[in-house]
Amino acid sequence: MRTLADLGEFGLIERIARIAQIAQIPGSVASSQVKLGIGDDAAVIRPRAGEDVVVTTDALIEGVHFRWRSQAAATIGRRALAVNLSDLAAMGAKPLACTLALAAPGGLGLRTLDGLVRGLTRAAHEHGCPLVGGNLARATTTSLTLTVLGVVPAGRALRRSAARAGDRIFVTGSLGGAALALARADLSGGQLRSVPVPRLAAGRALARLRARGACIDVSDGLAADLGHVLQASGVGAEIDLAAVPVPSGFARACARLGLDPGRLAAGGGEDYELLFTLRESAPRATALARRLGVAVSEIGRITRKRRLRGLPAGGWSHF
Amino acid sequence: MRTLADLGEFGLIERIARIAQIAQIPGSVASSQVKLGIGDDAAVIRPRAGEDVVVTTDALIEGVHFRWRSQAAATIGRRALAVNLSDLAAMGAKPLACTLALAAPGGLGLRTLDGLVRGLTRAAHEHGCPLVGGNLARATTTSLTLTVLGVVPAGRALRRSAARAGDRIFVTGSLGGAALALARADLSGGQLRSVPVPRLAAGRALARLRARGACIDVSDGLAADLGHVLQASGVGAEIDLAAVPVPSGFARACARLGLDPGRLAAGGGEDYELLFTLRESAPRATALARRLGVAVSEIGRITRKRRLRGLPAGGWSHF
Repeated sequence: MRTLADLGEFGLIERIARIAQIAQIPGSVASSQVKLGIGDDAAVIRPRAGEDVVVTTDALIEGVHFRWRSQAAATIGRRALAVNLSDLAAMGAKPLACTLALAAPGGLGLRTLDGLVRGLTRAAHEHGCPLVGGNLARATTTSLTLTVLGVVPAGRALRRSAARAGDRIFVTGSLGGAALALARADLSGGQLRSVPVPRLAAGRALARLRARGACIDVSDGLAADLGHVLQASGVGAEIDLAAVPVPSGFARACARLGLDPGRLAAGGGEDYELLFTLRESAPRATALARRLGVAVSEIGRITRKRRLRGLPAGGWSHF
Repeated sequence: MRTLADLGEFGLIERIARIAQIAQIPGSVASSQVKLGIGDDAAVIRPRAGEDVVVTTDALIEGVHFRWRSQAAATIGRRALAVNLSDLAAMGAKPLACTLALAAPGGLGLRTLDGLVRGLTRAAHEHGCPLVGGNLARATTTSLTLTVLGVVPAGRALRRSAARAGDRIFVTGSLGGAALALARADLSGGQLRSVPVPRLAAGRALARLRARGACIDVSDGLAADLGHVLQASGVGAEIDLAAVPVPSGFARACARLGLDPGRLAAGGGEDYELLFTLRESAPRATALARRLGVAVSEIGRITRKRRLRGLPAGGWSHF
């Protein structure tokens, strides 16, 4: 098996640049803002006048966030980008470019590397977010640290701190599905194939709404992430648990595995849906769904009193 | 000893944000372009009209780039930022903001964490490059992956590919000192205290020169990094090894340790000086030194023939 150590650092950079080039069709809209990509001391990006630059970083670490046995390399690469793009979506931003800091043992197979990079750069191409640079380092375990840059019209970024008492609370798509899939894969020893779809178009549509309030993506679970919004905004909330959207057949599937569907929907993380608030004057969920291009459910209200009611406690911490 | 695991993820983020706040005096020039810092899904930066955004990523990994025993935590934190800022310097860019992806075992002491963050954020403050966000993850070894954003007047970024036959070749400061210090610390078991000074002001001055050519920072050694410039530009070079600047007392110190000073100056990495070319019409080194605010030496010429002459082979690879 050929490994990273066989190629050397600069051979590796060339290999990654080549895979990235194949996946990223030149001349696409996004790449016209990339003035200099892989291969120099830094990449150069040109925002348009009136655009704020949004930057976010997230890491996937072997043994913590992924295992080679339970996911294909391409799925891991795709996922590494998707979780970062979800943060951009939560800001209402459009992706511009990404960098990858890859740390890996010298013994990592080149086919695995190719899979990681292919998964990542294919997703990057789909979302108009070309890989423009990064770093390679030797390490005992593999990790992918991605930094994603995006743009949002100046002053329009969606913040966690913008919820106000009286706001209505919404969520895109459905919650609990990722936690259920994980529980299933754990039990069966099967591979986890699903990758979250970052709600980029929905986030950009939200940033344009006059009634916009706070926004966050649901990575740690509804209760935990709503908690972040409430803390940042200095408010509370009342949630109608029955209104929290779940995937079809969810209750039955949970019952079969002996799981509490309410806890899973409120506490399970990694769905990467958008949780947001809008002022009272906002359209109804059905009209919003058309504007955002994704299913939208109204699940509660922001209250003056700093308490979260209606949800079982949940979420998870990285430490 | 209190550790990361005692605090939990959000307690840690608050702790880091507090240390960063103390080090970063609000209202400084740089922070007026930071519209949203630590604590949301992403940070928001506002470039000025006519500015290109420059982005670079570099990682320091325990056991590969640093050891707790041989460097103080604050030195490691400071170094992590410095090596990234050196990449900005090589682009001719001004720092704007940075993000930190920190991966660490739950058992890492809080005092060590504080030292890392303090070293990093103090350097960040000195260079006008506030810490605006990042990521925390559990891992078996500690690593710091920094991404730094900077700005450069549109179209003025210094590239590796801009060397032309006839260009004169220069280097700032002196080379070989970092390799010598490392050899000394290895032999004595002493701590490595020095941190490279990123040549930011010199890089910005270079980007404004009419005679500007290619530029790179010397991280892998003169021979290796000049090699990158030659390859990217499709040219060769002739170097006068005797003209390569070394620290004072260098030859004597090398002799004492049985090291070849020429090899160390040409092959030793991590000096983080700027290696650059200028068109023939450029001022002399003494005049340049005044413009760049740092010692400058002329060490050779770019040639049409794609060969590197006058240097012993050297440099190092990460794999």
